Amino acid sequence: MKRDWIAVDWGTTNFRAFLMNENRVIARISAPCGLLTIENGAFADTLHQQLRPWIVEAGPVPVLMAGMVGSQQGWQNVPYVTLPAAAKDVLAGVQPVETPWGSLAWITPGLCGQSAWDQPDVMRGEEIQLLGLNALHPAQEHYALLPGTHSKHAWMKNGCITAFSTLMTGELFSVLSEHSLLGRALPPQQEDNRSFLAGVSAAQRSVPFSHLIFSARTRRLSGEIAAEHIHSFLSGLLIGDELSTLPSGQRAWIVGSTSLTARYQLAATVTGASLTTVDGDDCFLQGLALLRSHLQELTP
Amino acid sequence: MKRDWIAVDWGTTNFRAFLMNENRVIARISAPCGLLTIENGAFADTLHQQLRPWIVEAGPVPVLMAGMVGSQQGWQNVPYVTLPAAAKDVLAGVQPVETPWGSLAWITPGLCGQSAWDQPDVMRGEEIQLLGLNALHPAQEHYALLPGTHSKHAWMKNGCITAFSTLMTGELFSVLSEHSLLGRALPPQQEDNRSFLAGVSAAQRSVPFSHLIFSARTRRLSGEIAAEHIHSFLSGLLIGDELSTLPSGQRAWIVGSTSLTARYQLAATVTGASLTTVDGDDCFLQGLALLRSHLQELTP
Repeated sequence: MKRDWIAVDWGTTNFRAFLMNENRVIARISAPCGLLTIENGAFADTLHQQLRPWIVEAGPVPVLMAGMVGSQQGWQNVPYVTLPAAAKDVLAGVQPVETPWGSLAWITPGLCGQSAWDQPDVMRGEEIQLLGLNALHPAQEHYALLPGTHSKHAWMKNGCITAFSTLMTGELFSVLSEHSLLGRALPPQQEDNRSFLAGVSAAQRSVPFSHLIFSARTRRLSGEIAAEHIHSFLSGLLIGDELSTLPSGQRAWIVGSTSLTARYQLAATVTGASLTTVDGDDCFLQGLALLRSHLQELTP
Repeated sequence: MKRDWIAVDWGTTNFRAFLMNENRVIARISAPCGLLTIENGAFADTLHQQLRPWIVEAGPVPVLMAGMVGSQQGWQNVPYVTLPAAAKDVLAGVQPVETPWGSLAWITPGLCGQSAWDQPDVMRGEEIQLLGLNALHPAQEHYALLPGTHSKHAWMKNGCITAFSTLMTGELFSVLSEHSLLGRALPPQQEDNRSFLAGVSAAQRSVPFSHLIFSARTRRLSGEIAAEHIHSFLSGLLIGDELSTLPSGQRAWIVGSTSLTARYQLAATVTGASLTTVDGDDCFLQGLALLRSHLQELTP
């Protein structure tokens, strides 16, 4: 029983928890109680409510949390660790939080640094996946894509995260499809691979972004893309645009859910990127397990 | 009295009309009755309601309309004229519409063609400003920026529009500031030229767009840009990104309202673009007047 612990991924929209025995998942839950839904800072209560069945059964096991729960809008503001950052640096930034039921609990820090394009950048949560990726697939160098609302492209050397860049691919898709002219008055949408790949191809030509996306309007007007497939085409434009930033001939890991990594793999058939898929949850849990094994050494 | 006519700019959001005597404005009106507000195709009724005071006074003078009123969602779908297009080509695409009160009335066509980046592109309304620009400032070549919700960058040779590209600068500003993380939980915004110019500078580095805009988040987190100035910074990023597409050393006209062209002129102090301002309404009215003088020849 002493080796049981709980891994938590607590983001802006979602809450997910994993009851673990060492590196093995025993049970998992998810709930739509992300940061935006927490009122009056009731983080401890919400966590207790979610974890109660496990605590009743396994006792007050340690809880290790990552994600936006450690941001200014979260439970406790856990300051960013500055690049370059290895596991020991992340570990040094971990902060304890009190739980009313007596579990040891910690929140991991995010990372900050200059991006590949010399812009200030931040991440919270993805650094855990990167540490996990290196634990699962040790190598001298890693280049990894973590697609999502805010995709992260990251470089690692000898287990140390050296640089990363955020690309707002997922959020751009949401706001453009829901709130711009490009998504206005569309019929119900159907996934269409041909339209998706047409979008990926169109994005491979150094076209300015604010011009490129207008083609989701003009190709609809011309009938080149059916009105039912505009979301697929727009998704292709955005993912194609993201992949067009990869250094030519770059091999990269793609870390995420099956559905999302499959879209990037499909796009890569056009762009020529060489992507190897790794499951995002596997990386996340491996990364937290690595940190937790060290935290255990530090606590009675 | 025979030389009076009415120029109409009828767009998605706004309706504007000008009572003209030859090329001279006698009176003007504007109303928020753009296409999106017209129910059951009541275009003729809406137009009558707006123009009635002038018609009572000046009689059933001819009406020449441009803009989205000629689109699929408008009064009558007036097909696009294909590039290259001179005044005579636009004129050939003009279509009459019937008015219940007996005025001669026409809608001008839009233009379609391949953009400078080989994407299909369309415009409706801006072609009138371009013809007017050439009438006001005759030259062998023109390169003109028409900033707005959907900015247009256009090339003219010998009075003929040869190519143009749409950049969704204004609409991207709206959706990102209103619907994305970048605009979330901001205090009331203040215009700030320093933040605007910082945005313009940041956009001059070939940074991928979906990465560049995330700096409106990170520079706020770091305190580099005050929360009250995020809109100014984001506006600078977007206008800077638009101007970064100009060929190096390119001289260009900038056609629009005083407030908008002034922002582009301010940005140009950073980018080094050489912009000459022309009033957008002057160009619009000059362009319509040119077409109207030919239409008059064709009608009794």
